[in-house]
Amino acid sequence: MSSKFLPIQFDGETLKLLDQRKLPTEEVFVNVTTLEECHAAIKDMVVRGAPCIGFTAIFGMALWVKSQDEINIENMTKAGEYLNSARPTAVNLKYEIDRVIKLSKQQNFSNLFEHITSFGQLQIEESESKNRQMAVYAQLDLEKRYSKKRLNILTHCNTGFLACGSIGTALGVVQHLGEQDRIENVWVDETRPYLQGSRLTAYELSKLRINHKIVVEGAASYLMRTGQVDAIFTGADRIVSNGDTANKVGTSNLAILANHYDIPFYIVAPSSTFDLNTKTGSDIEIELRDEKEILEYKGIQIAPLESQAYNPSFDITDGKLITGIISEKGIAHGPDYSSSIMSIV
Amino acid sequence: MSSKFLPIQFDGETLKLLDQRKLPTEEVFVNVTTLEECHAAIKDMVVRGAPCIGFTAIFGMALWVKSQDEINIENMTKAGEYLNSARPTAVNLKYEIDRVIKLSKQQNFSNLFEHITSFGQLQIEESESKNRQMAVYAQLDLEKRYSKKRLNILTHCNTGFLACGSIGTALGVVQHLGEQDRIENVWVDETRPYLQGSRLTAYELSKLRINHKIVVEGAASYLMRTGQVDAIFTGADRIVSNGDTANKVGTSNLAILANHYDIPFYIVAPSSTFDLNTKTGSDIEIELRDEKEILEYKGIQIAPLESQAYNPSFDITDGKLITGIISEKGIAHGPDYSSSIMSIV
Repeated sequence: MSSKFLPIQFDGETLKLLDQRKLPTEEVFVNVTTLEECHAAIKDMVVRGAPCIGFTAIFGMALWVKSQDEINIENMTKAGEYLNSARPTAVNLKYEIDRVIKLSKQQNFSNLFEHITSFGQLQIEESESKNRQMAVYAQLDLEKRYSKKRLNILTHCNTGFLACGSIGTALGVVQHLGEQDRIENVWVDETRPYLQGSRLTAYELSKLRINHKIVVEGAASYLMRTGQVDAIFTGADRIVSNGDTANKVGTSNLAILANHYDIPFYIVAPSSTFDLNTKTGSDIEIELRDEKEILEYKGIQIAPLESQAYNPSFDITDGKLITGIISEKGIAHGPDYSSSIMSIV
Repeated sequence: MSSKFLPIQFDGETLKLLDQRKLPTEEVFVNVTTLEECHAAIKDMVVRGAPCIGFTAIFGMALWVKSQDEINIENMTKAGEYLNSARPTAVNLKYEIDRVIKLSKQQNFSNLFEHITSFGQLQIEESESKNRQMAVYAQLDLEKRYSKKRLNILTHCNTGFLACGSIGTALGVVQHLGEQDRIENVWVDETRPYLQGSRLTAYELSKLRINHKIVVEGAASYLMRTGQVDAIFTGADRIVSNGDTANKVGTSNLAILANHYDIPFYIVAPSSTFDLNTKTGSDIEIELRDEKEILEYKGIQIAPLESQAYNPSFDITDGKLITGIISEKGIAHGPDYSSSIMSIV
């Protein structure tokens, strides 16, 4: 993929971040040259998506290193804690900062700027390579069903380069198929309330010049009933040991509809998403978000002022409804994931 | 129900129409005193919903009668044709205008203003009485399952007094249950793209002081999985002889989810909605609406300018997924409606 679409670009001096708050109507890059600016960009959601937040943090630490006369474990830990406070619940943020500190210790705090920027670049490359591998597994499985025809794919939420830095998970599959001219059309569902589909996934597909049409989530059954969906691909936030999967609310609706219409439904996620210490989806806590996401749009009141909303951000898809779970290590097939899931973690 | 919530009020001089374009944030009545103003109110969608459009047309014809020195079949037909041109595809509009003309002939064009206004008032009352009867059938069926507990009901689109003039179909059931303190909570789904749920149904429930929470359509599976939905009620635009039902897009998603989770799913519609000359839902043409409803919100661009949307306005729910179809004549139960549907038409 052409680097011009990368939402995170580092030239050795400046970290350029595509401002995702302004998409899709404005393409603006924010220039980050200090740890403080990096903190602000993460906190204010210039970048989003777990992988992207992690990559941004690595380069933020590199910029901090460059600004220091002397670096030791104390001041580096303090810098890391400060950066982590930008979004304390983002697991990936802390994870990558800790890895940077560990690497720095291994290097005895010398030539750190070079080591950390190389490490950051390597993480982006490895992520792309993993995503590409997932797409290959997905294509192999699809070809068992569909031979060589061009496919109509439905996807939910945002899983492409904006979220992942590289080609992405579910949308990485779409991009991979698109590069081989195997996509007829991608149905991008809006993904209410935050509209990740119509704002971000549609933007990615426009940039990739892949045929797509935005639909409301309510149209999914109509599209499946009328034979216009060959397969569904979504990402995952967490996959537990029986294959139950937490992902953006609305995902499990699609899995149930796909099951009803006998259409294959796939989850695509790196092995780091798997949590085999948790037994079933019922053990996963579901985050409730601000009801204003539903009651307003860009500050314009939609609903009556007296009305409230209920805004669960994720749902649980039963493993037994998932045709295949794909990681960089392979594909496991349902409906019973109790042993097969071990092979892809 | 208190008359203050009636969207159509006639005091013998002025037809007051609640301006549904401004709901839910502004409650404004438009005063109509001439046929021309009535035409404009229908054309500009001050009123919407098939029953409400029909009632408005009756009073519009009464206002025309009042303005004339001499009335005969020629000028009345011309007035009716003019009024019908406000929304020529609204079947109910022509139906009620034709009935007014037929009535006028029967009365030899004398005392028409009194006859037509009485006829209009009677139509509203009969509609409420039919809706109330449907609600009674619904409650009887629910009580076989749930005894006396307070219920959590999910509904889709808008089927209350704003659409129907009186208590409404699916929302009439909710109102009827609410009057007996049998509602725990109503889940109002947004109903994208036009947001009839969050704008209109939430407004109706606020006015009726019935507990409700707005949710995105993607949350339906989550709510059902977590035991928070006891039954689903929706209206219908057309019901054919095998029970297949055309209704607002997203309805069939709910029926499939309800079937998966073993939750009762009901359709509530007056017998005038039934079209037994059509055999299956596949014979019903689905209207495609303007993609801007999806791509923009109140003139604000949501999606990339390069992206298109696909906007089917209705979908087909398989009769075999419907627990019960309720009209003012009774309830028919699925999954096989081939003979039972005759009893409620």
